[in-house]
Amino acid sequence: MMNLKQASLSEVREKAAAAKQASRQLGTLSTGQKNEALLLMADALINEQASILQANEADLTAGKENGLSESLLDRLALTPARIAAMAEGLRQIVELPDPIGDTLEEIRRPNGLLIVKKRVPIGVIGIVYEARPNVTVDAAGLCLKTGNAVVLRGGSSALHSNRRIVEVLHEALAQSEVPADALQLVYSADRSSVDEMLKLNGLLDVVIPRGGQSLIQTVVRNATVPVIETGAGICHTYIDSEADPSMAIPIALNAKVQRPSVCNAMETLIVHRDFAQRHLSELTDKMREQNVELRGCPETMRLAVGVKQASEEDWATEYNDYILNIKVVNNPDEALEHIRRYGTMHSEAIVTENAETAQRFLEEVDAAAVYHNASTRFTDGFEFGFGAEIGISTQKLHARGPMGLPALTSTKYIIYGNGQIR
Amino acid sequence: MMNLKQASLSEVREKAAAAKQASRQLGTLSTGQKNEALLLMADALINEQASILQANEADLTAGKENGLSESLLDRLALTPARIAAMAEGLRQIVELPDPIGDTLEEIRRPNGLLIVKKRVPIGVIGIVYEARPNVTVDAAGLCLKTGNAVVLRGGSSALHSNRRIVEVLHEALAQSEVPADALQLVYSADRSSVDEMLKLNGLLDVVIPRGGQSLIQTVVRNATVPVIETGAGICHTYIDSEADPSMAIPIALNAKVQRPSVCNAMETLIVHRDFAQRHLSELTDKMREQNVELRGCPETMRLAVGVKQASEEDWATEYNDYILNIKVVNNPDEALEHIRRYGTMHSEAIVTENAETAQRFLEEVDAAAVYHNASTRFTDGFEFGFGAEIGISTQKLHARGPMGLPALTSTKYIIYGNGQIR
Repeated sequence: MMNLKQASLSEVREKAAAAKQASRQLGTLSTGQKNEALLLMADALINEQASILQANEADLTAGKENGLSESLLDRLALTPARIAAMAEGLRQIVELPDPIGDTLEEIRRPNGLLIVKKRVPIGVIGIVYEARPNVTVDAAGLCLKTGNAVVLRGGSSALHSNRRIVEVLHEALAQSEVPADALQLVYSADRSSVDEMLKLNGLLDVVIPRGGQSLIQTVVRNATVPVIETGAGICHTYIDSEADPSMAIPIALNAKVQRPSVCNAMETLIVHRDFAQRHLSELTDKMREQNVELRGCPETMRLAVGVKQASEEDWATEYNDYILNIKVVNNPDEALEHIRRYGTMHSEAIVTENAETAQRFLEEVDAAAVYHNASTRFTDGFEFGFGAEIGISTQKLHARGPMGLPALTSTKYIIYGNGQIR
Repeated sequence: MMNLKQASLSEVREKAAAAKQASRQLGTLSTGQKNEALLLMADALINEQASILQANEADLTAGKENGLSESLLDRLALTPARIAAMAEGLRQIVELPDPIGDTLEEIRRPNGLLIVKKRVPIGVIGIVYEARPNVTVDAAGLCLKTGNAVVLRGGSSALHSNRRIVEVLHEALAQSEVPADALQLVYSADRSSVDEMLKLNGLLDVVIPRGGQSLIQTVVRNATVPVIETGAGICHTYIDSEADPSMAIPIALNAKVQRPSVCNAMETLIVHRDFAQRHLSELTDKMREQNVELRGCPETMRLAVGVKQASEEDWATEYNDYILNIKVVNNPDEALEHIRRYGTMHSEAIVTENAETAQRFLEEVDAAAVYHNASTRFTDGFEFGFGAEIGISTQKLHARGPMGLPALTSTKYIIYGNGQIR
């Protein structure tokens, strides 16, 4: 065990204050200076691969002793390929355009004032996340590229890995113009360090949680610092009576099984009765072939075999697994009503050839991303062409949907006068 | 006294739920339908002026009994002219372009997906404010124009006025396509009704406080619903050694005395030593002629007469009054450092003829609005040409600076496919 018994209260505050101090210098750097730092960070990860893997081994050993599940151990595990992917991720961020300094608006007023709205860094971003060491590198890269200092608080099970990674990145930053203090990792594994972070108004400008529903809710409920809520997705696909089955069935299968563990995967399929009578049996057969467990409404159970009855709780669950709820409806209104009730405003899809029905669905569904004739799996910064993603916002302020680099910026009005008074 | 003894817990929740339900219909209305409702509201205020003034009289009588200050009574008082101004404000909102439905981005992906980012209403907006009945009309108009339902919780001292105003507006809405439930006023004067509003996640999408620093901090500290922080302004003007006195002195006077009670008025003047030696005496004489009380650093006291010593607390106070702090500095760095320490990221100004010094100040000062050679008093939605303003955001997320109609919107990605899967 490392010595983590520092007073966590002061550790978090001290590191946030150091980050804030560093953010001033960071905010004035050129794109070239920031990119140079990102490339040094990428090189350092590759060069220091051995020591990172060694630190990761310590986490994995402790994780096994603590009885972490296989899937958690897999998320925690680093390999040379995964470290190379982390370095490659940083190099990709280098290639992205730097939004800082962009002019968003120019207003010339009758009194001669010129008002220019410019993109500026947010300042200091806090990230609270769980046991995936790649988030450490990813979040650091995205924040530094946008001129923001970052305070990272990862899960305790990845602490050895995260500490070594941040040491390596600090060594790289020491050779660059980016102040090393702009990147901070909280060492304290104590839950109180999270609680303290969430109330650092004046030091942190925003906290972004990355992880499961329970982590997100802890942050939303306790933060006095502004929060960007990300992630939870109970996504639906509605197959209309006028859907083309050669499109609807592949879309439903893709939305469920292409990667069930992620937030944009479908949890509930809603099928119009007419389509269900003709094609539900074929569709459920294909789902079962892919090892999907099926839970449904009574009508689904009547029309297809191997379907268990879905409970009220099932409709409201983000499985992130090979489980699918199916509901048969009589019209689009019932589909919309079900989505209003159980959706998490993440990603929702309709499959139909009827343009009017599609248009109504696209307008009335209140979600970050609404699809016509495509899989919900596309809700992703890379699939949207943003080249990066810090998360998928499911709230309505500041950013909604996949968050690329501009979501990590604020704005500032700069006003040029020549003596104007009111 | 009216009967306010309903169970406030359920009142707030019920009204927020009704607002949410109404927001769905409201979100689908055309600009014309929303404008028609705003015009009916304006007419109704004029037609029902007598009953509104009568209700206001009850508030004023109670206010006097409760010992409200003259300035609070003035803010509370309605007159035919003030009611006409409220109606005129609604008519001005009608003239503004409706941002809802605007396309912000269109992305065509290599796989054929067309991704369209559109402006949509936020949903339900909560406004917590103090004793100015005009905010009731203003906030209702801005929210409805942007397709948002609104839950208003005004100060208890204006409750009779606010109730009557909302009754009148409801009668107007009943003749329009806008559901009357989209406008809700909380009747409970109990502080617990505010606390309850701040935690209505799932019903309210955002809460905006409008009022003094203590109200704002209560909201920021207690809300689990997202907040847009507005208002507090400790604004500085820095007069550089290379300032033109014929510009600097009028700008400083204007920033202080043109309307001292508002958030964009100057609280502290920072003066370079060279300028101070030549012009501080003249400047302070003019301030005193305008009845401005002066508090300053020792150097200010040496260079000008009638200056009291400023305390640490003075530098950190938003007076909103005829009081000014003055600090003499040796260089722009000291000015920047003072602003970092005491500023509230609202509005800051530099007066100088040196373009390089100006540029550095404009870049390094972290505030919603930074001015070169102009008065800080211009930080205002109308002065910026937005035609309306729901407040001035001093936070960095979602909106920063004067908030016009677009600040009351969210976005949504609509994705058009023809069978795309991953």
